[in-house]
Amino acid sequence: MLTGGPAQPAGVPFPPDVAVVGAGPVGLAIAWRCAARGLRVVVHDPAPGSGAAHVAAGMLAPVAEAYFGEHELTGLLTASAARWPAFAAELADVSGADLGYRADGTLMVGLTADDLAEARRLWAYQQGLGLPVAVLRPSELRDREPALAPRVRGGALAATDHQVDPRRLVPALRTAAERAGATLVAGAVRRLSDVAAGVTVVAAGCGAAALTGLPVRPVKGQVLRLRAPGGVAPGFRHVIRGYADGEHVYLVPRAGGEVVVGATVEERTDTTVSAGAVLRLLRAAVDLVPELAEYDLVETLAGLRPGTPDNAPILGPLTGRPDVLAATGHHRHGIVLTPVTADLISDLILTGEPDPLLAPFTPDRFGLVTPDEPGVAGARASGGATMKEERWN
Amino acid sequence: MLTGGPAQPAGVPFPPDVAVVGAGPVGLAIAWRCAARGLRVVVHDPAPGSGAAHVAAGMLAPVAEAYFGEHELTGLLTASAARWPAFAAELADVSGADLGYRADGTLMVGLTADDLAEARRLWAYQQGLGLPVAVLRPSELRDREPALAPRVRGGALAATDHQVDPRRLVPALRTAAERAGATLVAGAVRRLSDVAAGVTVVAAGCGAAALTGLPVRPVKGQVLRLRAPGGVAPGFRHVIRGYADGEHVYLVPRAGGEVVVGATVEERTDTTVSAGAVLRLLRAAVDLVPELAEYDLVETLAGLRPGTPDNAPILGPLTGRPDVLAATGHHRHGIVLTPVTADLISDLILTGEPDPLLAPFTPDRFGLVTPDEPGVAGARASGGATMKEERWN
Repeated sequence: MLTGGPAQPAGVPFPPDVAVVGAGPVGLAIAWRCAARGLRVVVHDPAPGSGAAHVAAGMLAPVAEAYFGEHELTGLLTASAARWPAFAAELADVSGADLGYRADGTLMVGLTADDLAEARRLWAYQQGLGLPVAVLRPSELRDREPALAPRVRGGALAATDHQVDPRRLVPALRTAAERAGATLVAGAVRRLSDVAAGVTVVAAGCGAAALTGLPVRPVKGQVLRLRAPGGVAPGFRHVIRGYADGEHVYLVPRAGGEVVVGATVEERTDTTVSAGAVLRLLRAAVDLVPELAEYDLVETLAGLRPGTPDNAPILGPLTGRPDVLAATGHHRHGIVLTPVTADLISDLILTGEPDPLLAPFTPDRFGLVTPDEPGVAGARASGGATMKEERWN
Repeated sequence: MLTGGPAQPAGVPFPPDVAVVGAGPVGLAIAWRCAARGLRVVVHDPAPGSGAAHVAAGMLAPVAEAYFGEHELTGLLTASAARWPAFAAELADVSGADLGYRADGTLMVGLTADDLAEARRLWAYQQGLGLPVAVLRPSELRDREPALAPRVRGGALAATDHQVDPRRLVPALRTAAERAGATLVAGAVRRLSDVAAGVTVVAAGCGAAALTGLPVRPVKGQVLRLRAPGGVAPGFRHVIRGYADGEHVYLVPRAGGEVVVGATVEERTDTTVSAGAVLRLLRAAVDLVPELAEYDLVETLAGLRPGTPDNAPILGPLTGRPDVLAATGHHRHGIVLTPVTADLISDLILTGEPDPLLAPFTPDRFGLVTPDEPGVAGARASGGATMKEERWN
């Protein structure tokens, strides 16, 4: 035990090779990948899976999410979505869990002529990137999804956009990480010096700002969960996304009858559910799929996404702190980016070589960052380190 | 102990003079009134106050609730509302509780020209009954309630319509009843023969049908609770009721910041909250008072009102069962009718003389009713009775 070093929970291997701060999907997946490759891993979280993942819809939609001006992010989303089928299969195999993975594709629609005009601009942009967007004739749209309102003016299919259920994903990842040998510690990390490890991975979502000084800010999202009455499956099978009288909404159907309706994007730090947001989401949802009016409203919830100045995640070593890796700032894309984040971060830890995919997303793009305190580096210099910096930086 | 008689909970005086089945406001108020006048009273309920009262908004609005074709009901509502100020004062004094009683009056409004035309027909009817309805000029309406949307076309004031908070009322009544000597037993009554008493009062809301065979049916109502952000009081002080694009809605502001938005009236027996109902209520609410969009949505809830064929309560002895008094079927009016119901039923038990007010509301207006089983009468004949039938019938 290091004199003056951080307290270590009983039963935890000390010092571990990797300490992960945050047991959301990203943190757990990194822990799983690292532990499966022989590293000693400890994950710290007071309430695993209770963050943004608990609110998230779980769309794996690099095509539908390809927006103007986010070219590099689109590349990472596409790379991660491509890893999802194998990642899901391996995770289901290791954990024994059903992740609710579905490959039914996403329908992008516009309710009014104005909505459709806006949607068409986006589809043209996506097609220009070479992404698989198939514009449908109205009759084709209805044939694919008869539950759509007759007044929906038009749509397009992103057949390769899939979905997963984040509330199934988190416990599955936890099981996988623990079976691979990772240890979960139920406790909050207030300062980086609270943990001692060869490498500390900050996968703490919005909490990364206080720990690292990185420009991660909470972006509030409000989401509803409906349920088809009588326990049947929803009357539509695609994820439906679109504009309804200028309101953007998505509808994610699950096999068990649940439909996730989301989401607001608000520069607010509270997690209250507002009447106006619920009204706007419900109105848009029912305008697009009228049968949803008959569904039960089973949950209204708000969460905080970890947003960044350029809407892209922050992946890699902090400037001046090669022993601290950020894996945060995933904003609206935490679920889809989980596999690629876990692969790239665990590879970096194991090989010391950053994958070229990481280049646009490193912390240093925001300039010099000075962490609050140098406690971890000091502990490592005193003998807490089990890995050499040059291994991963 | 009677051989073969019903089981009696330990510590309960046996046999009591009065057994009340149901610890909602009506049952508890009857128990309070009876116990305060010296009778031994036992109240049976597995979950006191968990029925329709938990959902109810608590409007004491005989004027705004005076509808075409319900003349006799309007008389009873008016009689009970007139008793409310003294009832509330006495109950607050006895229980030490703040009931949230407010005398700010009700504004009845119409959003569109069509809504206003419909409202005006009702106001003319109410004025024709001699009820105090003051039609306001648009400028008067805005002066009274600046939070109303500018597009609200017109309104009228029912200054004598008050409100109380049912969630404060129930525990206050329970305290009052217990301080007067009544005993609460936490348990369900499945059959009338489960209880033995001189008189059994069935104040079980929708549960009265199974116990008595009376034509009481559940009428579903869905209600929202909003809360002004920051813990401030709502930006309006009147109860606001009205039509918004054909949707009837009421908005009940409470001092603590809560606003109750209600209510659907559905011939359904489930208590699920539907997306369509929440959408309609929120849309109407925000159309009438736009600032409500910024309020937190803190609760969505559905309850079952005890409806009757003529929408009026059922008060008095069952046909052929003078030892069983009904006090149920209060439908949308349970809170406002609590004082008059408690007074009339307790007077009937004490004096044996039915008040003339009861005449239109007795069970026999639905024809002969045959209770499922005669267990209680048998028990009384065997010695369980402490009151003579002629005292109250």
